[in-house]
Amino acid sequence: MAVADRIPGASSRVTRDPLPRSRKIYVEGSSPSIRVPMREISLQPTRESSPGSGEDGRLIKNPPFLVYDTSGPYTDPDAPIDVRRGLPPLREAWIEERGDTEVLSEPTSGYGKLRASNSSLDAIRLEATATPRRARAGQRVTQMHYARRGIVTPEMEFIAIRENQKRAMAADIDHQHAGESFGAAIPAEITPEFVRSEVARGRAIIPANINHPELEPMIIGRNFLVKINANLGNSAVTSSIEEEVEKMVWAIRWGGDTVMDLSTGQNIHETREWILRNSPVPIGTVPIYQALEKVDGRPEELTWDMFRDTLVEQAEQGVDYFTIHAGVLLRYIPMTAKRRTGIVSRGGSIMAKWCLAHHQESFLYTHWDEICEIMAAYDVSFSIGDGLRPGSIEDANDEAQFAELKTQGELTERAWQQDVQVMNEGPGHVPMHMIKENMDKQLEWCHEAPFYTLGPLTTDIAPGYDHITSAIGAAMIGWYGTAMLCYVTPKEHLGLPNREDVKEGVIAYKIAAHAADLAKGHPGAQARDNALSKARFEFRWEDQFNLSLDPDTAREYHDETLPQEGAKVAHFCSMCGPKFCSMEITQQIRDYAAQQGLEGQSDDEIVQIGLTTKSEEFQKKGGKIYV
Amino acid sequence: MAVADRIPGASSRVTRDPLPRSRKIYVEGSSPSIRVPMREISLQPTRESSPGSGEDGRLIKNPPFLVYDTSGPYTDPDAPIDVRRGLPPLREAWIEERGDTEVLSEPTSGYGKLRASNSSLDAIRLEATATPRRARAGQRVTQMHYARRGIVTPEMEFIAIRENQKRAMAADIDHQHAGESFGAAIPAEITPEFVRSEVARGRAIIPANINHPELEPMIIGRNFLVKINANLGNSAVTSSIEEEVEKMVWAIRWGGDTVMDLSTGQNIHETREWILRNSPVPIGTVPIYQALEKVDGRPEELTWDMFRDTLVEQAEQGVDYFTIHAGVLLRYIPMTAKRRTGIVSRGGSIMAKWCLAHHQESFLYTHWDEICEIMAAYDVSFSIGDGLRPGSIEDANDEAQFAELKTQGELTERAWQQDVQVMNEGPGHVPMHMIKENMDKQLEWCHEAPFYTLGPLTTDIAPGYDHITSAIGAAMIGWYGTAMLCYVTPKEHLGLPNREDVKEGVIAYKIAAHAADLAKGHPGAQARDNALSKARFEFRWEDQFNLSLDPDTAREYHDETLPQEGAKVAHFCSMCGPKFCSMEITQQIRDYAAQQGLEGQSDDEIVQIGLTTKSEEFQKKGGKIYV
Repeated sequence: MAVADRIPGASSRVTRDPLPRSRKIYVEGSSPSIRVPMREISLQPTRESSPGSGEDGRLIKNPPFLVYDTSGPYTDPDAPIDVRRGLPPLREAWIEERGDTEVLSEPTSGYGKLRASNSSLDAIRLEATATPRRARAGQRVTQMHYARRGIVTPEMEFIAIRENQKRAMAADIDHQHAGESFGAAIPAEITPEFVRSEVARGRAIIPANINHPELEPMIIGRNFLVKINANLGNSAVTSSIEEEVEKMVWAIRWGGDTVMDLSTGQNIHETREWILRNSPVPIGTVPIYQALEKVDGRPEELTWDMFRDTLVEQAEQGVDYFTIHAGVLLRYIPMTAKRRTGIVSRGGSIMAKWCLAHHQESFLYTHWDEICEIMAAYDVSFSIGDGLRPGSIEDANDEAQFAELKTQGELTERAWQQDVQVMNEGPGHVPMHMIKENMDKQLEWCHEAPFYTLGPLTTDIAPGYDHITSAIGAAMIGWYGTAMLCYVTPKEHLGLPNREDVKEGVIAYKIAAHAADLAKGHPGAQARDNALSKARFEFRWEDQFNLSLDPDTAREYHDETLPQEGAKVAHFCSMCGPKFCSMEITQQIRDYAAQQGLEGQSDDEIVQIGLTTKSEEFQKKGGKIYV
Repeated sequence: MAVADRIPGASSRVTRDPLPRSRKIYVEGSSPSIRVPMREISLQPTRESSPGSGEDGRLIKNPPFLVYDTSGPYTDPDAPIDVRRGLPPLREAWIEERGDTEVLSEPTSGYGKLRASNSSLDAIRLEATATPRRARAGQRVTQMHYARRGIVTPEMEFIAIRENQKRAMAADIDHQHAGESFGAAIPAEITPEFVRSEVARGRAIIPANINHPELEPMIIGRNFLVKINANLGNSAVTSSIEEEVEKMVWAIRWGGDTVMDLSTGQNIHETREWILRNSPVPIGTVPIYQALEKVDGRPEELTWDMFRDTLVEQAEQGVDYFTIHAGVLLRYIPMTAKRRTGIVSRGGSIMAKWCLAHHQESFLYTHWDEICEIMAAYDVSFSIGDGLRPGSIEDANDEAQFAELKTQGELTERAWQQDVQVMNEGPGHVPMHMIKENMDKQLEWCHEAPFYTLGPLTTDIAPGYDHITSAIGAAMIGWYGTAMLCYVTPKEHLGLPNREDVKEGVIAYKIAAHAADLAKGHPGAQARDNALSKARFEFRWEDQFNLSLDPDTAREYHDETLPQEGAKVAHFCSMCGPKFCSMEITQQIRDYAAQQGLEGQSDDEIVQIGLTTKSEEFQKKGGKIYV
């Protein structure tokens, strides 16, 4: 908060502190408008040990460490933030330059117009309200459209630089296990051309609505870093822009790659505007939720016209991806009747109810091509919902679930015909041994479109800990090829997540995503593990904290046992105490060998020779190893 | 505490409350002395819904649900507990009846005698100090010895009943996915004879020292339920028996199947006595830790004689398994010099230092057969340590680790020659794709002796959350065949776990173990998931909490959002609110079909016919579904 307070116009309710010992850097691309943010963590030097000499060793510098940074300008003390004005529209010039869009004089959706003309809402409106942009007649303005025509957009170049964190950590890149990627095709270096080709063939998406120019482009695909999504909703008691924006800022601070806004209630249109204008990450929504509010919660009264209006309304605000449950077909609904837990997806149950009430296929399915047209005019990506996902271990991988998945595949192909970007949502509750079947079928039936799963939860018996039951499944399905993991918080099944729950969920999912990157052998993924373990081994406590996913908690836990500042430079920790420390003993093994003055030899030889010298000498020196 | 306070002689510092709506039951075996404890959770009735009628439906009883119970007599309000006297020695008669042991007049270890004769320790001694028991000369008193001679011990029968929880939940046992057990041989029903045969061939162990008659027998093996261990240590500030016992009671309350006592300091002998006399679960130790204290922390001064004395001291107290790092051979030590994090096992580094100082193989290795003799005379099981386990992702599955694992296999065979029970310890830090190799090699090289792993942690980058990084690895390796998972708490790498950390660690590992049981297709494992999901679907909130691994937390999280008592019977939850609830809609789908009066037909037909009736009718009735 300290930093925020110094910036004029900044809101003190939005978290602005950089993470400890971290600073924002920008890597420039081929044009000055391409400035890719990264977080640089500065590290302490390594003190070379010199056992037995009684002197401190020489200091050896450790280069700063770069990490992928989702937190946006909020963690840059130099960035002026004013949530009432929103973030700078960094993509605006790129969009304009393409010359295929037009700025509308007013929203074209009926609801958008209504809200715009309602002067009683002026009090809760942002100061700068954007005018929407739309594709010119007959144009498609999706990243997939450009990609298929061979165009490398600035967004693609931005992403290539962003995904290539690894070049910055080159020093350590060779120390990495070969992974098992189950047929993924991750190149050693991500080039803009590779980004283009992956988007062109539908294997990756860049959720980037032309009406969300504030976005720092990112990509979701099996051949890129595994991403995570955090779900947020407004709270009934909140009425301030700062508080709603802070929720999003908090989720991306800890690593949320995208955020789904699941807000409900009276002012969701305006709340969404607040979030979008201030969000550097893609925002997803489930438009049917808002549509349902418009018919006062009666699913059977939903119509294509009002749903269409809602799509346009949200597309013109800048939502980057829509969850649409078009795969819930009438004939699949009976398949759920004998399930342990029936239909557990909100969207799925709304559509099921509509289908039963009207005894016909949903308007989402029958109007799919028109929906695609809207998506193509704003570059909204599909997240094709899995309305019939299993809600319990027993219902995993059943007929209803897989029937819908096949339909998701058909819908994917039809969207691609209109150059619309697509990912597919997946389960749910699945025991470990049945997870891979989900991935394999999705790859096959949905033609390698990115998979986006909720968990899956690997058991039903731990409400209160479903961030853990699901992190297990998420790590595994991420390894198998899922491109984005939708987080689950400890409150799943029980209540609404608070700030602490959101953080718990995000960190659990960063763990899952990173464990998946490691297992896939994603180039450079192991560099952070290596750097942290090196710091741990060298008792650079501060570096161990700062390289971790959550430096605040790591430091706090350490200090609970050893609060003294001195303990953070001590060559031991609370687990073993100063008397016997395994890491110190290892160092002694190394030092002892090296000390024999055998520098010309290989490490193995040094150690071998060291071992054959007399043991008394070792014992004499051995007494001095602890600081 | 309320319950504890009512019991004469009970300590109010030891948690005595039964878990919510739970009562202890005892299933009797072939003799009245075999009384196997289980926890019975009583459930609320299901209210049959009758949509549209405006009336409440009929109540249908749900049978109580039985779960495996590690918590011992502490959760039985009828059991008198006095920590100064210890638990009743329920195995004493079984041991005596075998007629192959003798009661010693005093401890035979030098250190044991010293402590016994030191009157300054009288103040911290238990009221009832047990006299140790030992095998008669020439006898082996291990469960493996009996098993190999075809004897089914009362311990084996006890275990068969205990593992067969599933028979009690037979109603739902058919609703279970076939698992993938990677060649395990789990029978539909666990018989005493099956227990015997598994112990005889070394595929399972029953850690049960003849000097720990308070023990409720349990088994560790790939063809049984996956178990978890919780590590505990004393704290420097504690001086009360109650506090030390409470730590153990707390760990087993949440599901710890065994406890390792890693206490250090002045009175570890007496602290261990407190824990053993009050522990219904097997207690493991790492004797080298105590031996090291006896030489004031100088590994090079350790000798076989004083280590031998420590083994006998602890064996005569009743420790059920010893971690012994005999696989750390001199020639393996240089293999660790180039590692990222060297040797991270305390026991491993102590032995490595000894080996270097003396330039010879450790006394653990050279005296292995004598150690086995001691183990056989008290039935202490081996947990052969993995002193060279990897301490970072980079060091996973390296030469040093696998060299030691091979030696663990040799030591296993030699122990088996003396009928000594063995499990093998495993890593550590391992990325997901390299976990299975650990299991496969252990099965092959250690001849299917049970594997007992620490995690493994699937990434190094999340200190503060290593219960999660490791629960991922633990679930997977448990699925692949690991018999017991050693827990990791959130404080791993940072500090000493407190009460809350112990619980977090235990619950994370209960999740991992159960997820593994589900994936292996362990008969009956899914019954609890099914029961909980049924409760969830039927909005039996109390049952959902009570069937969960941690009812207290589940209830607390629910109440944070909806604290009113009424919310616990409401047919909706805070996630969707009363307006649209997916589970309600599913119920409507079922009810609607059933309501057509088609009881004679199959469920599928009912649903199909239901769907083809006119939609207006559905709409008319649809308005009334929410309570």
